Amino acid sequence: MDSGKVVENIYLLVIVTLISVLQNALFAQKVEKECNQCSQNAQKSAFERVACANRNCMDAYPTFLAVMWCAGLCLSQAPAAFAGIIYLVVRQKYFVGYMGQTSQSTPGYLFGKRIIFFLFLMCVVGIFNYLLTRHYGSDYKEYVETITNAASALLLLP
Amino acid sequence: MDSGKVVENIYLLVIVTLISVLQNALFAQKVEKECNQCSQNAQKSAFERVACANRNCMDAYPTFLAVMWCAGLCLSQAPAAFAGIIYLVVRQKYFVGYMGQTSQSTPGYLFGKRIIFFLFLMCVVGIFNYLLTRHYGSDYKEYVETITNAASALLLLP
Amino acid sequence: MDSGKVVENIYLLVIVTLISVLQNALFAQKVEKECNQCSQNAQKSAFERVACANRNCMDAYPTFLAVMWCAGLCLSQAPAAFAGIIYLVVRQKYFVGYMGQTSQSTPGYLFGKRIIFFLFLMCVVGIFNYLLTRHYGSDYKEYVETITNAASALLLLP
Repeated sequence: MDSGKVVENIYLLVIVTLISVLQNALFAQKVEKECNQCSQNAQKSAFERVACANRNCMDAYPTFLAVMWCAGLCLSQAPAAFAGIIYLVVRQKYFVGYMGQTSQSTPGYLFGKRIIFFLFLMCVVGIFNYLLTRHYGSDYKEYVETITNAASALLLLP
Repeated sequence: MDSGKVVENIYLLVIVTLISVLQNALFAQKVEKECNQCSQNAQKSAFERVACANRNCMDAYPTFLAVMWCAGLCLSQAPAAFAGIIYLVVRQKYFVGYMGQTSQSTPGYLFGKRIIFFLFLMCVVGIFNYLLTRHYGSDYKEYVETITNAASALLLLP
Repeated sequence: MDSGKVVENIYLLVIVTLISVLQNALFAQKVEKECNQCSQNAQKSAFERVACANRNCMDAYPTFLAVMWCAGLCLSQAPAAFAGIIYLVVRQKYFVGYMGQTSQSTPGYLFGKRIIFFLFLMCVVGIFNYLLTRHYGSDYKEYVETITNAASALLLLP
């Protein structure tokens, strides 16, 4: 099972998934915007804070899984898995930070935007590369993979 | 990698996923029923409305992804992706409609029922077709795909 | 498409998914702990109860799907599907039990821990088996599958 064959069978599904991820991001941004405007009056209990942190993490979880798997299947799995690990670290920090807040300045609704964006880009490059290969017969996949592997190290920057 | 081989490795998983989707639909319907009975007294703020709309969309998101991918893998990807696009349009309308409401008449909990049902049907047909092929050796897959492609156009009807 | 080839392309993704599932379990446990401490004062309406039960089920749904599919793809699909069915039965019981409660003693946040743990273990064994096969060339997969099939029957114990 070489990778081009897999992509052939799923590339339309991946494209729809990517559009849905974009839409999710749009929705989440609206929530984030409203959230910032009205979170001043909230003095939440410990339970409310931990439940809210958990909910925010769970809301973003299917999106993360979908993007990571698409990126891993369409392009190459090592950088996708690496970005996934970084995302999990960021999520852990977010959760701990959310619980530790006792005043009203809770962190926002979103986190890990950069990593999701990177995985999203990987999917787009993978799909684009597949379409190029099919229509023109030239395969840049190896170059792209090398570049992606290098670029994924950039995620470690704070 | 022809499609029959893939289905062979996952058809039990797809069946369980379908049952879980049915169960999700059952749960959501219970929520919908209760929701209609008690939403008269709610005069929600803008933040509550956008958060609620986002939550309802996110609740349905894993179900949608699972059904779309199963339908795409088991039967054929073009109509599944097309139905997915339609679902995203419906979701966008739902979200905008939810936010735009200033009175108490918010839209219900569910949306895109018809599209989910169509994708669900595609999965069932794909599994059924695979089992028929395995036990009787006759393959109706091409006829079924043609019919599905035609039927997916019906989703465009309002 | 034999199973070893599939695992080769996704094993890093599966590992990251497993870590994310562990993290989800950690988060959920924190919620559970706080939940027990403060749920005495809640006398919830019918709508709140059904919405809460649905939300708890939906929160756990992506985790369940991810673990079940990984277990099915990495090791073998029959026990994974069987465990999935058991999980759905447990979830149905949980939902009905949650709705039926009229006093303050609602069930906790978590359910089906044992089944998720079993599926998690199946993934770990599958990955471990793949790595052993790749590095040492010995394949214990058939033994492991037989043991797993037998072990999955243990889930039926109350």
